[in-house]
Amino acid sequence: MVSESGISTFERIDLDCGVTIAPVECAWESYGTLNELKSNAILIEHAFSGDAHAAGEGGWWSNMIGPGKAFDTDKYFVICSNVLGGCRGTTGPGSINPETGEPWAMSFPVVTIADMVRLQKTLIDSFGIRKLLGVAGGSMGGMQALEWAVAYPGSVAAALPIATTARHSAQQIAFNEVGRQAIMADPDWNEGNYYGGKPPGRGLSVARMVGHITYMSDASMRAKFGRRLRAPDQFEVESYLQYRGSTFVDRFDANSYLYITRAMDSFDLTERGTLGSLFERIPTRFLVISFTSDWLYPSYQSLEVVSALRSRNCDVAYCNLASDYGHDAFLVEVKEQSELVRGFLASTFRSLPA
Amino acid sequence: MVSESGISTFERIDLDCGVTIAPVECAWESYGTLNELKSNAILIEHAFSGDAHAAGEGGWWSNMIGPGKAFDTDKYFVICSNVLGGCRGTTGPGSINPETGEPWAMSFPVVTIADMVRLQKTLIDSFGIRKLLGVAGGSMGGMQALEWAVAYPGSVAAALPIATTARHSAQQIAFNEVGRQAIMADPDWNEGNYYGGKPPGRGLSVARMVGHITYMSDASMRAKFGRRLRAPDQFEVESYLQYRGSTFVDRFDANSYLYITRAMDSFDLTERGTLGSLFERIPTRFLVISFTSDWLYPSYQSLEVVSALRSRNCDVAYCNLASDYGHDAFLVEVKEQSELVRGFLASTFRSLPA
Repeated sequence: MVSESGISTFERIDLDCGVTIAPVECAWESYGTLNELKSNAILIEHAFSGDAHAAGEGGWWSNMIGPGKAFDTDKYFVICSNVLGGCRGTTGPGSINPETGEPWAMSFPVVTIADMVRLQKTLIDSFGIRKLLGVAGGSMGGMQALEWAVAYPGSVAAALPIATTARHSAQQIAFNEVGRQAIMADPDWNEGNYYGGKPPGRGLSVARMVGHITYMSDASMRAKFGRRLRAPDQFEVESYLQYRGSTFVDRFDANSYLYITRAMDSFDLTERGTLGSLFERIPTRFLVISFTSDWLYPSYQSLEVVSALRSRNCDVAYCNLASDYGHDAFLVEVKEQSELVRGFLASTFRSLPA
Repeated sequence: MVSESGISTFERIDLDCGVTIAPVECAWESYGTLNELKSNAILIEHAFSGDAHAAGEGGWWSNMIGPGKAFDTDKYFVICSNVLGGCRGTTGPGSINPETGEPWAMSFPVVTIADMVRLQKTLIDSFGIRKLLGVAGGSMGGMQALEWAVAYPGSVAAALPIATTARHSAQQIAFNEVGRQAIMADPDWNEGNYYGGKPPGRGLSVARMVGHITYMSDASMRAKFGRRLRAPDQFEVESYLQYRGSTFVDRFDANSYLYITRAMDSFDLTERGTLGSLFERIPTRFLVISFTSDWLYPSYQSLEVVSALRSRNCDVAYCNLASDYGHDAFLVEVKEQSELVRGFLASTFRSLPA
């Protein structure tokens, strides 16, 4: 598989909050080859804690992206970039503010899902791609896929929002808020000024533990851990969560946690009008996928999007896939998901004007 | 309503872990009047963060206990005591260890649900009550009701385990573990030695926030908060959770949080045999109640108990009450619950030998 990676620097990005970041950097990876018409590009959107490394060794969606896979790199040119506000190469709170020479920390401006997508649009433009064959992602990645279709309908042939929502519920906001409070309760957070010193590892670890519980289902936790003991006074599930919490600290920035969860919570397509009115006359085709045991992004949230699309006679396929894996299903339920995605992309690709 | 309260001191309690606490104190309240036969006593078991103050002004189950209410204090003598390991009058990690003159803190011995019930049995004996008309409680209170029936079947005419389980699932353990880790991540926890100083309020507050989310349902959070804002950059649900977290610090001891959640997690009736074998020849009548939207203690856990009781032809009534209130339903769904409890207690009382 041909793959490339890079960090593109753009002159500026104007944010929803009114602030301009200039310059701005965007870390990306690509897999496969862009065809001459530049009509085979698919943008993959990562979830909250993901990054641009979507495919290949250790890629977070490597079971879905590659030669012969759902996102077939023998046919398509697949791109993934780290989100604005992130900590894996794209400009975020841990980046240096050129005006001060210091990390932005909490002086980093508030970013939104729309801002993230705006930066991706700039990136896609820089590749000379006028229209994406597809935009796909799960969870927060699905929010970005929805945002792409609404913000740049002429630039997306197909959108694949998976295990996602048009707006967070009170419960989703609440779980994110617990994570934020856990980070800010850690004295090492120090109002966000910990770069070059000790990061708020204890708080970030607790935040990640909460996250992991919400990504799994009651049934998948029972199957994976049950009440098995790791030590006489420690359940396996406790040891697992502690491990996942502590290793997260090595690869994620606590301030990015605050900014990105805030972007997710504030995302609400319905602020711009009813979902139906937003989807009016959108030419994009949709494949919406949810999973039966996903209680963090329950199926009813996907159905809300699907109903609105159907109310406007948009081209939409919806599948609520049976799975015990909870929200994590979008990362692990490869077989059925691949069937759907492969067929949907192929038919979209065939239908493009030559 | 006649009510009394007191703190009873007992010579000793021998714990499951092999340690003896001597002496041991037990805080209790009672409502109504014990009849001459001492046959009208009902023991109420509080949930994780509750205390002995179950009825009257500010009582945690005052909507269920009182004159003419479900637990009718015109007919019954209702008792509630604070659990062993607690922080509301009964001996716990914040109590003074008589051998050192200092608070036990983390040198307090490990306590179990069975230990809590053993102390309650001593308390009930001290009232001269040989057989309780009923033992009732929700959540951890329900675990104690089950423990009573299994440990002292001849001493309980009726058990009312509500919104509870015979053993915690991996998910339930996981949520408790997050709370424990949040507390222990707070530097003010100081390995449990904070008495007389600053308690680990930030950690305890985060722990409580997680708890509150699990006590509500997706639907009840939507109804109560939705996406309403409290301030331009704060959702109401965030403000609510922060408030509930911060006020909890004033009334609950962080070390008790650690000990009591550990007792809940380690509770597993099936360690002593199959549930069916434990219920073999138990004369106790059961009323088991669960709630449709309770995802923390899902109905299948109550059904597991009910199935085992039915397999042994025990006298059991089971209701899965429709409610949107999640786990909190046992505290707020008064009407239907009262109907069930009232009828069940009356018929049990009538059936007692004169």
